[in-house]
This record gives sequence, C-alpha cells and structure tokens, in this order.
Amino acid sequence: MLRAGLIGYGYWGPNLARNFAAHPECKLTRIADMSEARRKQAAANFPSVEVVESGSITRDSDLDVIIIATPVFTHFELAKEALENGKHVWLEKPMTSTLAQAQELVEAAERNKRLLMVDHTFLFTGAVLKMKELIDTGELGGLYYYDSVRINLGIFQHDVNVVWDLAPHDLSIMDFLLGPKAEAISAHGRGHFDTGLEDVAYVTVFYPGNLIAHFHLNWLSPVKLRRTVVGGSKKMLVWDDLNREEQIKIYNKGMDVTTKEGLYRILATPRHGDMYAPVVAASEALKAEVAYFVECINSGKNPHNDAAAGARIVGMLEATNQSLKQNGRVIPLK
Amino acid sequence: MLRAGLIGYGYWGPNLARNFAAHPECKLTRIADMSEARRKQAAANFPSVEVVESGSITRDSDLDVIIIATPVFTHFELAKEALENGKHVWLEKPMTSTLAQAQELVEAAERNKRLLMVDHTFLFTGAVLKMKELIDTGELGGLYYYDSVRINLGIFQHDVNVVWDLAPHDLSIMDFLLGPKAEAISAHGRGHFDTGLEDVAYVTVFYPGNLIAHFHLNWLSPVKLRRTVVGGSKKMLVWDDLNREEQIKIYNKGMDVTTKEGLYRILATPRHGDMYAPVVAASEALKAEVAYFVECINSGKNPHNDAAAGARIVGMLEATNQSLKQNGRVIPLK
Amino acid sequence: MLRAGLIGYGYWGPNLARNFAAHPECKLTRIADMSEARRKQAAANFPSVEVVESGSITRDSDLDVIIIATPVFTHFELAKEALENGKHVWLEKPMTSTLAQAQELVEAAERNKRLLMVDHTFLFTGAVLKMKELIDTGELGGLYYYDSVRINLGIFQHDVNVVWDLAPHDLSIMDFLLGPKAEAISAHGRGHFDTGLEDVAYVTVFYPGNLIAHFHLNWLSPVKLRRTVVGGSKKMLVWDDLNREEQIKIYNKGMDVTTKEGLYRILATPRHGDMYAPVVAASEALKAEVAYFVECINSGKNPHNDAAAGARIVGMLEATNQSLKQNGRVIPLK
Amino acid sequence: MLRAGLIGYGYWGPNLARNFAAHPECKLTRIADMSEARRKQAAANFPSVEVVESGSITRDSDLDVIIIATPVFTHFELAKEALENGKHVWLEKPMTSTLAQAQELVEAAERNKRLLMVDHTFLFTGAVLKMKELIDTGELGGLYYYDSVRINLGIFQHDVNVVWDLAPHDLSIMDFLLGPKAEAISAHGRGHFDTGLEDVAYVTVFYPGNLIAHFHLNWLSPVKLRRTVVGGSKKMLVWDDLNREEQIKIYNKGMDVTTKEGLYRILATPRHGDMYAPVVAASEALKAEVAYFVECINSGKNPHNDAAAGARIVGMLEATNQSLKQNGRVIPLK
Repeated sequence: MLRAGLIGYGYWGPNLARNFAAHPECKLTRIADMSEARRKQAAANFPSVEVVESGSITRDSDLDVIIIATPVFTHFELAKEALENGKHVWLEKPMTSTLAQAQELVEAAERNKRLLMVDHTFLFTGAVLKMKELIDTGELGGLYYYDSVRINLGIFQHDVNVVWDLAPHDLSIMDFLLGPKAEAISAHGRGHFDTGLEDVAYVTVFYPGNLIAHFHLNWLSPVKLRRTVVGGSKKMLVWDDLNREEQIKIYNKGMDVTTKEGLYRILATPRHGDMYAPVVAASEALKAEVAYFVECINSGKNPHNDAAAGARIVGMLEATNQSLKQNGRVIPLK
Repeated sequence: MLRAGLIGYGYWGPNLARNFAAHPECKLTRIADMSEARRKQAAANFPSVEVVESGSITRDSDLDVIIIATPVFTHFELAKEALENGKHVWLEKPMTSTLAQAQELVEAAERNKRLLMVDHTFLFTGAVLKMKELIDTGELGGLYYYDSVRINLGIFQHDVNVVWDLAPHDLSIMDFLLGPKAEAISAHGRGHFDTGLEDVAYVTVFYPGNLIAHFHLNWLSPVKLRRTVVGGSKKMLVWDDLNREEQIKIYNKGMDVTTKEGLYRILATPRHGDMYAPVVAASEALKAEVAYFVECINSGKNPHNDAAAGARIVGMLEATNQSLKQNGRVIPLK
Repeated sequence: MLRAGLIGYGYWGPNLARNFAAHPECKLTRIADMSEARRKQAAANFPSVEVVESGSITRDSDLDVIIIATPVFTHFELAKEALENGKHVWLEKPMTSTLAQAQELVEAAERNKRLLMVDHTFLFTGAVLKMKELIDTGELGGLYYYDSVRINLGIFQHDVNVVWDLAPHDLSIMDFLLGPKAEAISAHGRGHFDTGLEDVAYVTVFYPGNLIAHFHLNWLSPVKLRRTVVGGSKKMLVWDDLNREEQIKIYNKGMDVTTKEGLYRILATPRHGDMYAPVVAASEALKAEVAYFVECINSGKNPHNDAAAGARIVGMLEATNQSLKQNGRVIPLK
Repeated sequence: MLRAGLIGYGYWGPNLARNFAAHPECKLTRIADMSEARRKQAAANFPSVEVVESGSITRDSDLDVIIIATPVFTHFELAKEALENGKHVWLEKPMTSTLAQAQELVEAAERNKRLLMVDHTFLFTGAVLKMKELIDTGELGGLYYYDSVRINLGIFQHDVNVVWDLAPHDLSIMDFLLGPKAEAISAHGRGHFDTGLEDVAYVTVFYPGNLIAHFHLNWLSPVKLRRTVVGGSKKMLVWDDLNREEQIKIYNKGMDVTTKEGLYRILATPRHGDMYAPVVAASEALKAEVAYFVECINSGKNPHNDAAAGARIVGMLEATNQSLKQNGRVIPLK
C-alpha cells in the first residue's frame, strides 16, 4: 500500500485527491495547501486525511508518494526535495519553468531511483489512445502532417503566454503520438494587451523526413475549436475534442500517386473513400493515469510520460518562447 | 461601347466571355485560343463572336480591351503587348510569375495611360464586401489578427506549390480588407511527393502594430474548410465560405481590459455577447467586377484591384517562396 | 423562514436538497427516503438535516413545505396528505398518473389555501424565458406552428411509454409559451418490444386559429436531437438545446404575402433576412425556480406553473395515451 | 434506336432532353412546348431536333417514346393518348391528379403492352441505392421506423398543398425502400394563408407489424432540412441530403433486449457502436434513370418505378388529402 501526500488543493488537486483516495493500492494520508479556505474544503471532502499548511511534507518519512499540483514556479523545488527524500513524484504539467530545471529533475529521479511522472492527462483519454493505435499499427500509413487548433475566448493567464497555457496539452499529445523525434521549432505570435505576453501564436515543429506539425493557439477567438488533423499516406484522421458523439473520424482519403514518363513526373489523384468513426472509450482519463502511475511504481516499469517526456515538452515550450522573441528563428531541439 | 477580345477559353474564360458579352456598354468581338476544341466550344456558345487561334489579338486595332485568361507564365508578355498597343487589360490572377514582371506591368500601364485590372473575383462577393464594410466602419474596432484556413483534398498543380495555387485568393482578400500595409512575411511548408513543391504550408504576414495574419494552405486535408476569423477589439467575425446560409457571423465578443494598480497591471475579462449573421448578397461576383472594370475605364477611376494591388499579391507570393526556401526567414515586403 | 422537508433522495432529490438548503429564506430540516443507501448519502451531504425513512413527514407539524421527488404513482397521495395537513407542496413532474388525481390536487390546494407548484424546470432556463419574451412582445408576430423534436437512444422506462417519459418537458414548455389554450390532441406511435409501450410517437396538438403543434418523441434514434422550431408571421426561431453556444437563433424570415386580383388570389414571396443569436442566461434553472417558489409562498402570488398548469400537462398526456389507443382519434382537451 | 418526343420544355424538360439526346440507343427527334420563348430555347440548345407547338405529337407515327414533363393536370390525357397510340411513356411525378386516373393509365399500359415509367429521380441517386442495399441485405435488421423531414422556406405552389409538392419524393423513396406494403395513412396539417392549402403537414404511414413511417413537410421553415432516419433492430441510418460529404451515416446502435423473469419482462440496454459513412456514388441520377428506361423497353423488363408504383404514390397523396380534410382519420390504402 503506497502512502501518498498531495501538495496543492486548488483547481486540479481535488480530482487528484479523489482518484488517489479511490485507488485500492494507494492511501491518501496527507494534503497540504497554503490557503485556509482550501484546507477547510479538503478536510470536509476527505475527513480521514490529515490536512496541513506547509509543503514540507516532501520530507515526511511516512509518505512514499508526493503529488504536486501547485503553481509551475514551485514545481522544481518541491519535486527535487521529494525525490531527494526518496519519494516517487506525480507532477502537474508543465513540469518546470525551464528546461535546465527539468533536466535536473530527470537526473534527480535517476540518481534516487525514484519515479517522476508528469501528469499529461490527455494521453490517457480514449481519443488519444485510439489515435496512438491507429498510428502505431500503420493504419494511417506514413505521416505527412500534424495540424492542431486550440482556440477560444480564454481566461488570460497573468504570468505565461498562450503557448505555455494551452500548448502543453498539444505538444505532449504530439510527442506521444509521433514519438520523441522533434528536431526543431519555430513560432510567431503577438500580444494585444500591454502585458508582453502573446495571446495569439502559431508554432511549427519539424520532424525527420517531411513530417511537419503546426499549432494554432489563441485566447482571443470568438469560437471554441479543439481540433487536430493528422494526414497519412494511407488514411487521414480528424480529432474533434468538442464533438462528443464522433470524436475521431478516420477518412480513407489521400493521394494515389503514380510516376509517369514524360512531361510531368508525378501524377497525384485524390482518393475519396469511406469515413469511419470508431467508438471512443469514455472512462475518466485521470483514473486510468493514476492506476498506471501506481502500476509503474509497483512493477518498476518506466512510464511513457516520465521525467524525460516532461522535459521534452518544457524544452519545446522554451524553444517556442526563444523563437517568438527572435522573430520566428528556427530553434533546434536538443 | 468598348470592344473586347478574350485570350484563353479554358476553365475561367467562358465565364468571362459570358459576363463581358452581357454588359450593355461592352461588345465581345473576338476570342482567341490555341486549342481547336475550345475554339469550337467558343464558336458554339458565342455565334456572333469571331474566334481565332493566335493570341496576337493584343495588337488588333479594333479592340479597346484585352481580357487575358491564359496560364500564368504567359501573362506578362500578353499584358505588356496589349498595354503597349494601347489596350485596357483584364488580367487573371496571379498577375505574373515574378514581382519584377508585375512591376514592369505597373509601369507599362502608367506609361500608356491604360487600365490594368487584376481579376481577384472574391473581392466582389457579398461576403468580402460585408467584411470590408464591418472593418471600415469600425464595427470590429482595432484589428488583432486575421486567420485564414483554406484546405481540402486538392488537385495537385504541376508547376506551382499549394501557396501559389490557393493563397492568391486569401492574400488578395487580406490586402483588400486590411489595406496595403503588410510589412513582412514568413512561411513554413513541406512537400510529400517527389515534386519539390509544397503541398502543406503555413504563411504568416506581419502588419504594423501587433496585427498578425496567418494562412493555412493544404492540398492533403481529408476535410474541406474555407474559413477566416478576424479578431477585433470590439467584435470578431467568422467567415465560412462553405456555409451558404450563414456565411458571416459577427460575435459581440472580446476582452474587456482594465488596468489595475498592484500585482497584475492588466485585467482581461472575456465578454460573451450576441451573435449576428447578416444577409449576404448572393449576386454573381464576376458580373459586378466586370461592371466595375467598365465603369473604371469609362470614368478614369482607379480600381482598388489595379496593377499595383496585383503586384503586391505577387510580391507576397514571391516572398513566401523565398521564406519557404530559407527555413522561414522573415522576408520584408517592399 | 420556511421549514422544508424533502421526500425522495434519488436522481433529482439531491439537486432539490442543495437548492432549498442554499436559499436564504428556507431551511431544509428533514429528508425522507425508503432506501438506506440513499439515506446515508443524504446524511453525508447534509449533516445538519434530519434523515428519516418514512414519507409520513407530510404530517410533521414543524414543516411548512413538502418537496416531493418520488416515483409518479406516489405523487397523488403524498401531495394530498401534505396539502390537507396545511403544507405548501413542491411536486415533481408529471404531477400525477391521471387527470382526475391532478384535478383533485388542484381542489385540495384551493380548499386548503396552500400553494402546489409543479417542477417544470425547463420553464426557468434562459432559453425558454428568452422564447417567452420573443413571443409575448410580438417579435415573432402571429404564430403559425410549434415543432418539437426530442429523440435519442434512450433509457427505456419500464412503466411508461416514450410520451410520458419525454413529453412532459415539451408539453409544459409549449403550454407556457403558447398559453393554456390547447384544444385537442392526436397521436400515433408504435412499440417495438414486447412491452405494450410506445418507443416512437408523434403527437399533434391543436390550438385556436391555425396554430398547430407537433412533437416527435423517440427512444430509438441513433442521433440525439432536442430542437424546437417556432414559426411566426414576422420571424421564426430555432431552439437547439444541445448547442450551448447558440441555443436560440432568430430568423428574420417568412412569407411576404400580397393579395392579387386575377388568377391567383394570394402571392407569397419568401423573405430571407438576418439571423440573430442572443446571449442566453446560463444560470441554474432550478435555483431560480426554488427562489420563485419561495417568493410565491411569501407574497401569495400564484405561480404560472401552479397545480392547474400541472393538471393541463397531465390532461394532455392522458389524452395522448387515449389517442394512441384509438388509432390517432382527435381527443378534445377539457 | 428509339425515337423520342418530349412534351414540355420548362423547368425539368431541358434535363430530360439533354439526357435522352445523349443516350446512344435513343434519338430525341421532337420537342413540343406551348410557349414560344421555350421553343426558341429548345431550338437553340438542340439544333437538330424538330420543335413544335402542339402536344399532339403523342400521335406521331415516327415516335416510339413520349416523354411528358408538363403540369400535373395534363398528365392523364397526354399519357393516355400516347399509350393508346402505341408509345412507351416517360411521365413526370406525380403521375396524375387522382388515383382513378393513375389506375386507368396502369390498365392502358397493360392493354397496349407498352411501358409507362414514372420519373421518381431520387430512386436513382447513390444515396437511395445505398440505403436500398443496406435494407435488402439485412444490414439494418428488421425495421422499426422511417422518419423523414423535408422543410424549408419554400416557394408556395398555387394549386397544390405542401404534401403534393414535397411528399412525392419522400413517399416514392419510402415505397421503394420498404416495399409496396403500406396499409394506411393519417395526416394533420394547417394552412396559414387564405388559400385553403396546407403549408405545414405531418403524415403518418402504417406498415404491417409495427413499422411506422412519418413525414414532416413544411414550406414555412426558417431552416432547410432534408433528413431521413431509418431505425432497424441491428443498425440505424441517417440520410442527410444536404451534407454532400457524408450523405449517409450508418450507426451500429440499437437496443440489446433481454427477457427476464420477474418484475420486468423486458430489459433493453442501449448499444453505442461505431459510425460509418460509406462513399456514395455521385453520378447524375437522371442519366442512370434514362438508361434504365431504355433498357427496360429493349429487354421487356418491368421497371420498379412502373405505372403501378406511380399509382401507389398518387394513392397515398390522395389518401393524405382525404385524411387532412377528415381531421386525421386513418385512411386505408387499397
């Protein structure tokens, strides 16, 4: 039985508490939050859990797992301390504020032989798992492009731009689906209020071969769209996260290419085939992710959303900001 | 009564012939096409028009207007010859293959005191005119961004990439709506067949202030989208060219910004107001454009889609190709 | 301060308990439920409320209000007892199983000078209130028809057909919007399983003049639709309850009719005008309804969803069943 | 080589002329129309066809086929004369103004051993043929219901109500898909202008077993819908004639029914499976229908849309009008 302590009972903390508390091989024993109001709420919802003020529960000897759901700028220190004290760590996304910090956590996890998993919840949704299956089994064929749009009339964050706010979702999904092979990044964006923060951004990620990924992120859109299109040589898919009935549509469409002697070497003919919308599992992603976390700890298995994966996402976010500041310069990813 | 000759009776030529023939102050007297089959078709459809093979009707002394609807690579020479021979010219888009050629035509038109109008038909649709009105009257407020998506499973062109095929529409609409103030361009794209031509491209255009425009162009999309979103400080609009019933939707949405003393200087609150879909005129754009052309000739008025406008679009296309070849480098527009 | 007791803590009861408990002029003091599991749940959620097994709290002298959220077949007896014991009653829909029972409750409420309000929650949604305003102010003009579709792949009820399950919503909305003037009803339907209960039904309601209302109710639809179209002489509206962004669309469309001498007396020309989607208030309907209930008790005001309104709905449901059994015979409404 | 004469060169006539003229085994030799303007148009479009004024070409000895595309009230006489003179007849829908006339034509065709085919073009569209295949192969299972909606802001006809204007399409499709087994019909409707003609109507058609069909027909709808839902025991389908990309969607959805001992005999559980949108052939329906007509004449094969089929549709239309006049009385179909 793993004993877990949660730091941060704000927006996402209650969901983490509920799912960890419900796991049969895990016991949620402590919740820490600096706000008295949130501590009261936590105590009411989890009467048998000890509720404390200080985040120093990272050092508590009776805890095996530290769950960190605090503001990003605190992630590094809390996670570092937890790892150094021999805890497994569940860390909210984005993992850290800088790539250097993320890499230090990767090393700390390795050195202390502890698991650090970054909560990229979307990777555990039925839709993303179905897309992973479609890509890995080759049903889409070789991939041409990955185009993602996540726009709405949003809540402006005060300390980060629209990329750091919205793109962690999409970059982690792309990284999961296409593999950790992104080579470089370029971004353009603009802010329209006197904050120095972009509220509209376009991010391009380059992969080996001619695979190109692109992200449209926008806090100022009158319509809400969350749509990803993946084009492959055999089939293409559209994932519409707002269409609950038909989240994923797979199109048997593409270009049939023939090579011809003579004037035009290449002849491309559009192929218009059937469309198919598979049933997508509707169970709670976070529940599955918590189960996966516990299973990885117990079995010693390395999760796909490990510290290295979290660091890759932070690396891409950092490169995006660099590119934004340098007029779209292409920034290689390490 | 203007006497007009048309060169090129292929895809678009018949529409031009029909509209010029129907104009009360214009007489279509000659049609030239190199293909015998197309000449036959022209003769059947317009029994009273002389049909010839050679494009040298640019020199015919009994013609006032030359309408050029031939492949792009022939535009420059035909238009130049027509202008030098004192004809007014209607030229299909894109105007020329290079900016240098376009500029030479601008000068030739000026020198010969003749009108050269570039056929950007979309500028005469009810939807674009409605948007122009909404922007010019200030109903949208100051503009934040212009985002355009034109994607479908397309017919591959053999000699130009997806940008030269699809973007002339969107760039000319943007130029018309936002004014001739674009400062620079950056583009990324990829081709997936052995042609050296991009089939997916993302183009960013920079305007003074923080106005940013972006174009997603794609020949390999399983779904067809033609949608433009324009974000303003007061209102925002979505133009969906495939939704015949509600082409334009105007959203009374935006950010109400207040400046606050203390920790966060800027406070932005989303404003969710009514949506409104005005009736959009459904008359044929080309008919209106032909009338405008004749009116400009007769009155000496300079059309908004004049040679200079056509040259700006070619300049943007050329800059896009340059940027594509140089890894997205930002290319200043002259 | 009104003291309220709730009978029935099943599907809807918790929402009622939460809203009554939160009202500043009401105190929820007792919850009754026959199920031990539900009593436990009630005790956990409302620690300061007394939880009991028997529904005989209708006779408790320390209660002013009885809220009844039990199965329909129990409504009559519980509500009668509560009224006879001088309580105000909040009753779930449908009010009773028969029109005779409903009428007896109307009389009991009058005789005891107590309020009986039937919970037709939809009448307190922003969408229905907006439609009421549009109709009452004459913005739609004279009404032509009211067409409602409520279909989905549904949970089969074991004791009632699709009409008694789904139509109480729509009939009460129609009754509220068009006024209590329905004159007759006709219905066709079919059941496809060996239950004797219709799973597909079409119900037509006749109003004075040529106003016609129609309801499509279906438990066996592969797609979920909840859409009402109201056609008026000036404007028409579509209410799509599943479109959260644009719930109500008002179309400035209709027929412009002119009377002509000669062959055809009537000339009708379609008028295609603007569309407009007003912001619809998004607050919780049940909260507003509870406030209205308390206000009506305190002020002596008669609510629009009073016992008589509830009885009209039951009357229509009963007439529908009669018509279904008699092959669509038109049943007059009393 | 069949020699064909066409009577009526109005709205639909030119399409018939074009398709008959293009058929390799058919020669269009004569076109008759009472209007001089239409005769001029016909002569211009078909220079080698003789154009005449009188419809008496039904008696011309050099014609094998008469194509009738005139107003409905003239159908009976023209078709009768053509049959009596030994011609095969292509007749527009609806076949005649009364069932008695239709039956007389059925007999005339039999007596004269000539083919009378009624032009129900929709039966030759890719969508309807795909549905026919899905039903006939049993992919949908046993059928539960057939629900059709055809509404828009329409052109009012001066001499027929909305049912006679719109329902011939839907009734003929239903008759084709479900087979000629309709037993009875009931209809309600209202007219809202002083014409005595219904502009809104709801028609129910009863089939053996519990199969029920329903049609919503409306000239006064602010939105245009053309959608048919067919519910079967195995699968269900939605045909949206306005969605060109995904005309037919097949849902692996339904009710899994188990019989239980005890309180509730029947237990129905919703089954939510995949959705599938097959490619639907996009070729011109009328071309295929003309080919089928010629093939039936040449081979002596009886077409499915023969005189009897046309008479069934007229019978249903007549019964609908009867039911409308008799307050929805269920009218048996002969």
